[in-house]
Amino acid sequence: MSSFGSRLPFGSRLHRAVATRGRLCVGIDPHDALLREWGLGVDARGVREFGLRTVDAAASTVGIVKPQVSFFERFGSAGFAALEEVMAAARAAGLLVIADAKRGDIGTTMDAYAAAWLTPGAPLEADALTVSPYLGVGALASTLAHALAHDKGVFVLAATSNPEAAALQTARVDAGTTIAAAVADEVVAADTSRGDWSSLGLVVGATVDLADRGLRPFARTVPILAPGFGAQGAEPADLARVFGGFADGVIASESRSILSAGPDRLSARIAERADMYRGDSHG
Amino acid sequence: MSSFGSRLPFGSRLHRAVATRGRLCVGIDPHDALLREWGLGVDARGVREFGLRTVDAAASTVGIVKPQVSFFERFGSAGFAALEEVMAAARAAGLLVIADAKRGDIGTTMDAYAAAWLTPGAPLEADALTVSPYLGVGALASTLAHALAHDKGVFVLAATSNPEAAALQTARVDAGTTIAAAVADEVVAADTSRGDWSSLGLVVGATVDLADRGLRPFARTVPILAPGFGAQGAEPADLARVFGGFADGVIASESRSILSAGPDRLSARIAERADMYRGDSHG
Repeated sequence: MSSFGSRLPFGSRLHRAVATRGRLCVGIDPHDALLREWGLGVDARGVREFGLRTVDAAASTVGIVKPQVSFFERFGSAGFAALEEVMAAARAAGLLVIADAKRGDIGTTMDAYAAAWLTPGAPLEADALTVSPYLGVGALASTLAHALAHDKGVFVLAATSNPEAAALQTARVDAGTTIAAAVADEVVAADTSRGDWSSLGLVVGATVDLADRGLRPFARTVPILAPGFGAQGAEPADLARVFGGFADGVIASESRSILSAGPDRLSARIAERADMYRGDSHG
Repeated sequence: MSSFGSRLPFGSRLHRAVATRGRLCVGIDPHDALLREWGLGVDARGVREFGLRTVDAAASTVGIVKPQVSFFERFGSAGFAALEEVMAAARAAGLLVIADAKRGDIGTTMDAYAAAWLTPGAPLEADALTVSPYLGVGALASTLAHALAHDKGVFVLAATSNPEAAALQTARVDAGTTIAAAVADEVVAADTSRGDWSSLGLVVGATVDLADRGLRPFARTVPILAPGFGAQGAEPADLARVFGGFADGVIASESRSILSAGPDRLSARIAERADMYRGDSHG
């Protein structure tokens, strides 16, 4: 099944999800500490249970979930089997799934990542994938094209909140543009999808100084996957101020602030946090 | 078991491997076309068989193999189960295994990748992992420390051969240093391991212009994982000229040039290619 409209470009499905359910994205990050708080084992069975319960709690309230792949990957093939179940359950429940894997390579190697995550029927099929552009956005061209051909989405790392990232992301390419802005420009230029929202988006931290990174809004709404809301410091009320001309496309991802509620209070916490973003939704 | 000396830092084990077996690293890249040429299915069973046969053929001749994770990942959990078997077989045969996964994230997410690939007893345990520094080398600090604490290695993407990478990797950070050089400096500074070879290395393409990327050799031997030999254009005879002061630590990775020999001629082809690097080995 395809969430929020079958055979529509990812950007259009994402727009519908935000319009009907709001811009909160529930992160599925089964940390050791959270697994223990939830009374689950720190193992593949634990992350499976954690993921499935989160999907259940999210499905009636929000439109988007974001499993953090590394927390499943650490349990090897058993962890990936758990992730497959969690993603399938999410998509069956009508949620859009953004696989947060930050893959990045070149040529046929990158194509194999696209085959893994962005191909209908693949065991790890998601609706969108996060990718990393250290090898150049051009090296991701066939992945971006593959995503568009299959009505999938890609979020390319552009500007992140962690302090160690600033030096690289504000470095200047030949024309004096920052790396972050050059990445954003190339990603937006690569989008050939129909619809008022682009299907190719950017990862931009919620506590990043956008001007410092040289990011300027685009004419079309570009989806912005923004981790860093909730426990990491940004609040829903900050969204319009922080993102300015990008605010319309922001997908606000929260993990710890939601997951720390524990399994019994999870639905209530998700509803509570989702409401906080609805005041300013442009969807 | 630990290949090339138990309880030695990765850099020392790598040095021993190069000294006794030479600097050729056999890439395990089960492309669709190769799987078909080998008479194998394009599925998890096919990549398992492909990987195990390559390990068998490599084990008596070279010291290092490099599975390309994406070609296994595309088959989901079944592909990872195959990869686990291939890596376990390689390590049991005394080969050093560099998992080419190019993971890159921050904080506890990155720690989970270190748990996945660089932790004794983990299902996907490798001897070393390739990682990507778009979020800053500083964001990888705990992964680098984790690797050193467990006698594992990390190869950080620095300068790659693909033309789309040049703009980003030659961009200048504040002091006028290139991104590639800044990454290299930070990685080398993070290494606290004993031994004459560093345990933290760099990924540098074999057809990169090192001067153009601003890379200057270091006092200590830094392992350089160099894809691009063989089918991609660089030849063993070019190694000293291309890598100059870095040549001592080069791990020359070949994939297609070896794997295209097919399963029956594979051992002979590996021996043939390995010999071509032994003339210039400083090991």
